[in-house]
Amino acid sequence: MRGGVVFVHCLATFHIMFTTAEAERLIFTLVNPIQAVEMLDLEDVAGYLGRVLASDMLSGLDFPHWDNSAMDGYAVRASDVQQVPATLQIVEEIPAGKLPQKTVEPGQAARILTGAMMPEGADTVIMQEETERQSVSQPGNQSVTILKTSEPKNFVRQRGSFARVGDQLLTAGRTIGPAEIALLSAAQQTQIPVFRRPRVAIISTGSELVRPDQTLQPGQIVDSNQYALVALVAQTGAVPIALGIVSDERARVKDAIASALAQADMVISSGGVSVGDYDCVDDVLTELGATLHIRSVAMKPGKPLTVATVDKSLYFGLPGNPASAMVGFWRFVAPAIAKLSGQQGPWSPAFVWAKATTALTAGGTRETYLWGQLVAGEAGYEFDTAAGGHSSGNLVNLVNVSGLGRVPQGETRIEIGQPVQVLKVANV
Amino acid sequence: MRGGVVFVHCLATFHIMFTTAEAERLIFTLVNPIQAVEMLDLEDVAGYLGRVLASDMLSGLDFPHWDNSAMDGYAVRASDVQQVPATLQIVEEIPAGKLPQKTVEPGQAARILTGAMMPEGADTVIMQEETERQSVSQPGNQSVTILKTSEPKNFVRQRGSFARVGDQLLTAGRTIGPAEIALLSAAQQTQIPVFRRPRVAIISTGSELVRPDQTLQPGQIVDSNQYALVALVAQTGAVPIALGIVSDERARVKDAIASALAQADMVISSGGVSVGDYDCVDDVLTELGATLHIRSVAMKPGKPLTVATVDKSLYFGLPGNPASAMVGFWRFVAPAIAKLSGQQGPWSPAFVWAKATTALTAGGTRETYLWGQLVAGEAGYEFDTAAGGHSSGNLVNLVNVSGLGRVPQGETRIEIGQPVQVLKVANV
Repeated sequence: MRGGVVFVHCLATFHIMFTTAEAERLIFTLVNPIQAVEMLDLEDVAGYLGRVLASDMLSGLDFPHWDNSAMDGYAVRASDVQQVPATLQIVEEIPAGKLPQKTVEPGQAARILTGAMMPEGADTVIMQEETERQSVSQPGNQSVTILKTSEPKNFVRQRGSFARVGDQLLTAGRTIGPAEIALLSAAQQTQIPVFRRPRVAIISTGSELVRPDQTLQPGQIVDSNQYALVALVAQTGAVPIALGIVSDERARVKDAIASALAQADMVISSGGVSVGDYDCVDDVLTELGATLHIRSVAMKPGKPLTVATVDKSLYFGLPGNPASAMVGFWRFVAPAIAKLSGQQGPWSPAFVWAKATTALTAGGTRETYLWGQLVAGEAGYEFDTAAGGHSSGNLVNLVNVSGLGRVPQGETRIEIGQPVQVLKVANV
Repeated sequence: MRGGVVFVHCLATFHIMFTTAEAERLIFTLVNPIQAVEMLDLEDVAGYLGRVLASDMLSGLDFPHWDNSAMDGYAVRASDVQQVPATLQIVEEIPAGKLPQKTVEPGQAARILTGAMMPEGADTVIMQEETERQSVSQPGNQSVTILKTSEPKNFVRQRGSFARVGDQLLTAGRTIGPAEIALLSAAQQTQIPVFRRPRVAIISTGSELVRPDQTLQPGQIVDSNQYALVALVAQTGAVPIALGIVSDERARVKDAIASALAQADMVISSGGVSVGDYDCVDDVLTELGATLHIRSVAMKPGKPLTVATVDKSLYFGLPGNPASAMVGFWRFVAPAIAKLSGQQGPWSPAFVWAKATTALTAGGTRETYLWGQLVAGEAGYEFDTAAGGHSSGNLVNLVNVSGLGRVPQGETRIEIGQPVQVLKVANV
């Protein structure tokens, strides 16, 4: 063998090609949501914003906690204001937060501010714009003239009208956002049960790769996938574990994957899954006892996609080209992480309809995703495919991407002005 | 004055009521974007994800860096494959990352893998599916038969075809997401210049307020706005500074606002801005030398809205009711923070069209926002107004809110099935 060109690497084989819908369905069946629960302190808002609630939350209080005024005005007995104008004696002033001290008897009223507790006896509130106040400058023995009649309960927020003790306020699996935080605070839930965040390990494979801080030699490529995948994983709320670059040697790849599986709930690698002689991720996975569920999806970019399970861990082998890796992440990995996190479904990516402002073209044999900008206009969404090449090796025109326009399998063109389904990858 | 009911508080006055569009325009003129720049290390992805780039970034490299193969196959001279089949001698194998050692002469080919640098002499790539390899098991003196003809440059990614040295890759004001991170890494930008994050101080005013960990006495209210606003500010990428509860006493409110202004770029208070006798935020601001630009907006909820400037700091006084405070934040404060952060515009909130799946009703005198769920369905967005009361004091049905349906000023009803404009408050 000496002196010759030796080709002893991983072998190229061909596989069943799944449609994107089939692949998505299969992937969801492989994900076992995290069950472990952590308790977080309500004061640490940054710590639980975006986390997933691990238990249903029942209300320990009525909302509102007691009858209170919806307006600034006067708390009165409705029976006293059936004939107007009616002049009533003011017995008390009740700002929000103060416990009323007196009962409003017939012929009496209490000055009341928004949010303040209704006094005994009163059953309705007259807004101050419909009253005339007498002797404002003379303390004691003051009165108000009511100019408008009212039914009972007007402008009174009834105790328990929003929720009652025992009502379910939040359900397990809810992602905690600002409104959920407002409710948890109002319900005085000082400890918040959330699911542990998934740990997702990230490996870049390829002997051609160098780090951004290393000098680039001719023929080499800077590993950008590691950084992009860390960011993508972080955006989902999972914990990224950056394991760096592994060269295309079977023993090194095997060690790296074994180590990644040992410390993570999910492993994502990029590179090493196409049909090249040096691509050996799939063979190594088999040696590690993995079950290989998917090796190819009818999608462009992103056709070579490995989905495997090793014990309970899920493995995604994404292509090495930057655009392919990102599209594969958005289409399949992000939804899998959503389910893994314990979030309520649906976990599928959000597709919206948009009007194409540039034509989208595709080969027709695979479902094709073209990146670009999704813009919410006056008449609905518009989608503008990024100018420049849609080569999977291009990442220059991937910047500012907010959507992936989809050309279905079997179609080759979506004309300007026609509707296109767009996978949203940013909040627009 | 002894023994009487004393009303010496801040005085209720009436103000010009701005439309939401007028208010938004005015607010944007009051925001001075942050200019201070910080340098962050590329390795600290969590530190700069979501930050705002402070300088344009020009490319120091061509993309691709050199001509390289888009496929696994054979690098050949196009002139050698005009007549096929053509059998060529294999002189070298070039995996990605390897510097080619030989020139491909007439009658020769080099085995080449995806991403690998093109060797001298060769100008096109034949994909391996269109070749037949001879003597695979015999090293030395190997050859390949090319089955399909090819034009020059086929399956070759040309150096500089995506970007050239000196091209602008990213512009200042771009928010850094995964695709921008991929490009920064690939361009070997190891230090990232970003704008300093805005500091936003948050105050809850109201003598009726208690913290979630305090025992609730009759008439009191748990302060939920502080927590919700911390979360809302954090979601924008700004740094929230939680300053807690201040009771409705003029001296305390004044001290708290002065302290907040001293340590933040923007101050948000909730409560104290309606016409109630105890609401004195506006008076205190005037004492502090503030210019009051807006005190009332024709919007429901959220009509009492104070927008003031003190020196270069912007002050938002939101209503105290939880729904009013959140709607005011989403409609006006979040866009102001976007501009303050140095982000490129437009900063206005994203409105999308949806089909109403429940009727929306409004009083007609003010632009009305009804909260609910925005769902991306097969035929476009649908908007389902949250069941239960839309009282501004309700926060039970605010959970899971993803949009605010807008009923324009002057309209009172949007029927089921009709289009409604929805302000998006979550990524759906």
